[in-house]
Amino acid sequence: MSKTVRIAITLGDPAGIGPELVAKALSQGKMPDNVEPIVIGGCGVLSLGGHLAGVGDRFMDDIEVITPSGCEPKGYEVGKVQAACGEAAFRALERGIAMALEGSVDAIVTAPLHKQAMHLAGHQYPGHTEILAEKCGNPPFALMLIAGAFRVVHVTCHVAIDEIPGLLSIERVVEVAGLFNSALTRLDGRAPRIAVCALNPHGGEGGIFGREEIEILEPAVQQCQESGISIDGPFPSDSVYPRHCAGEFDGVIAMYHDQGHIAFKLINFHVNRDTGIWEEVCGVNVTLGLPIIRTSVDHGTAFDIAGKGQASERSLLDAIDVAVKLARNKK
Amino acid sequence: MSKTVRIAITLGDPAGIGPELVAKALSQGKMPDNVEPIVIGGCGVLSLGGHLAGVGDRFMDDIEVITPSGCEPKGYEVGKVQAACGEAAFRALERGIAMALEGSVDAIVTAPLHKQAMHLAGHQYPGHTEILAEKCGNPPFALMLIAGAFRVVHVTCHVAIDEIPGLLSIERVVEVAGLFNSALTRLDGRAPRIAVCALNPHGGEGGIFGREEIEILEPAVQQCQESGISIDGPFPSDSVYPRHCAGEFDGVIAMYHDQGHIAFKLINFHVNRDTGIWEEVCGVNVTLGLPIIRTSVDHGTAFDIAGKGQASERSLLDAIDVAVKLARNKK
Repeated sequence: MSKTVRIAITLGDPAGIGPELVAKALSQGKMPDNVEPIVIGGCGVLSLGGHLAGVGDRFMDDIEVITPSGCEPKGYEVGKVQAACGEAAFRALERGIAMALEGSVDAIVTAPLHKQAMHLAGHQYPGHTEILAEKCGNPPFALMLIAGAFRVVHVTCHVAIDEIPGLLSIERVVEVAGLFNSALTRLDGRAPRIAVCALNPHGGEGGIFGREEIEILEPAVQQCQESGISIDGPFPSDSVYPRHCAGEFDGVIAMYHDQGHIAFKLINFHVNRDTGIWEEVCGVNVTLGLPIIRTSVDHGTAFDIAGKGQASERSLLDAIDVAVKLARNKK
Repeated sequence: MSKTVRIAITLGDPAGIGPELVAKALSQGKMPDNVEPIVIGGCGVLSLGGHLAGVGDRFMDDIEVITPSGCEPKGYEVGKVQAACGEAAFRALERGIAMALEGSVDAIVTAPLHKQAMHLAGHQYPGHTEILAEKCGNPPFALMLIAGAFRVVHVTCHVAIDEIPGLLSIERVVEVAGLFNSALTRLDGRAPRIAVCALNPHGGEGGIFGREEIEILEPAVQQCQESGISIDGPFPSDSVYPRHCAGEFDGVIAMYHDQGHIAFKLINFHVNRDTGIWEEVCGVNVTLGLPIIRTSVDHGTAFDIAGKGQASERSLLDAIDVAVKLARNKK
């Protein structure tokens, strides 16, 4: 029998869909075997989430909840940007990171926070990832998105298009390939086959539409191959994803945010044709490169549907599942 | 009854799949009503294509074929890069363009040519589009991809990523929106709803990841709206395509090649999981902005399967269908 894995789950912004999702996920015996969830956030917040989600709060009898000071805001309103909620989300995350760093949990899974609410509370971070990076000593990291067999990692991420070429280097591509190779090996239990996207259209067309493929990506791929990674490319990014979907590769390395996200969301997100509402929003966000394991849902606080019990816990369950796999197969 | 539409169909590179596809498309009574196809290329090339495709050449009895000099290469080998074939493809295209410009046909539909073969023949163009543009006096043009209800047009196209920001301007976005609006109106018989992609991730996040959204795209959208076009954006490009697929928009304006092509190919191209062979390659390429109507298949010469009768004529039939619609509803 495998060792019990302890997973810290933050509630995110109390006014968003996080507490509902956590309540749904924990109330129905949906945890994988030998996984012990520890909720970080307000008991009252989780209880309200359970009631709003229609599952009540009896499930809390069997679950450990850690409520750091400031995580139980009084009189907050679901679906609104509020400083007290931004503060609660920030403090829960801070505690989760500290617990993972000290080893009292094996991984953390984060429910969504609201950037504006966090800014109102005086914490000027662009999002989860930057807080994690700072608290972990700013190691080089990379954003991986994963939904079943569809996996993509980003060499650059939250930067303007005109900054991308200057941020690419052989070293950075090799670094991201190493992080990706290691994560996919832990997830799949075998060495993955990895594809690298070209930066420019048609893969640069032999240098006519840019030289990054020749000067950076080809040498980086070669260096990775020499180190034993099963990797190929650079391939034109418009033809690599249909090949990935057909199973030719286990993951794709994208050079920039939209090069990965356009494909990921087109495959994994669907909008209801009649209502215009996003549904089947699946996918897990993993921050590679940190000294701790951290996964996250791949959606936001969804204030528009918060409190209505409509939000699906699927992405959260997937995020827990990925965290557990990464924790079990840690080197 | 609608007026007969005359469509010139070039055979493309004789050594590629073009002649097979044209033979398949013309041999089975698949032409829409009141459409008169005129093949431009070698009679012998088309006849061989018919035999290779398994449909014979009896269909040629009912079809006009124009064979300019140099379009009937002797002793060429199917599936190989050959100068004589590059020359034949170039001359057929030249004649098709001339016929469309003089009005003796209503549109031209082009089968694929092979760039290297054309270069061997001494014609140093990057592809079809640049030849068309030059022969038509270099008007501003834009590449549209279309497959059923999925339509995308590109503000910039065959350029390196680092050149894109410098090529964007309010004038260029407004120009492409006008071309797109007019083409979609002709195709659908009504004014379309158009979405504009942001250039930067998260739509620039209020200027943090780039200012093109604020300085170029928002004013361009407003200018188009004031001129009566139903257009909205800029939207983050990773969330716009699921909305397009759900029918919220009739078409998407992409800022660069891969921003449009990643989504288009992921939706419309499929690779066989067992064989690794591309199948269901559908879609039509339309050059907007020319004084003539020109559509094209959205695939290449496929030398690897040329001569085997495997290639599907679906994209060619779609290209003919789009050309006919554009010709019938010409202003």
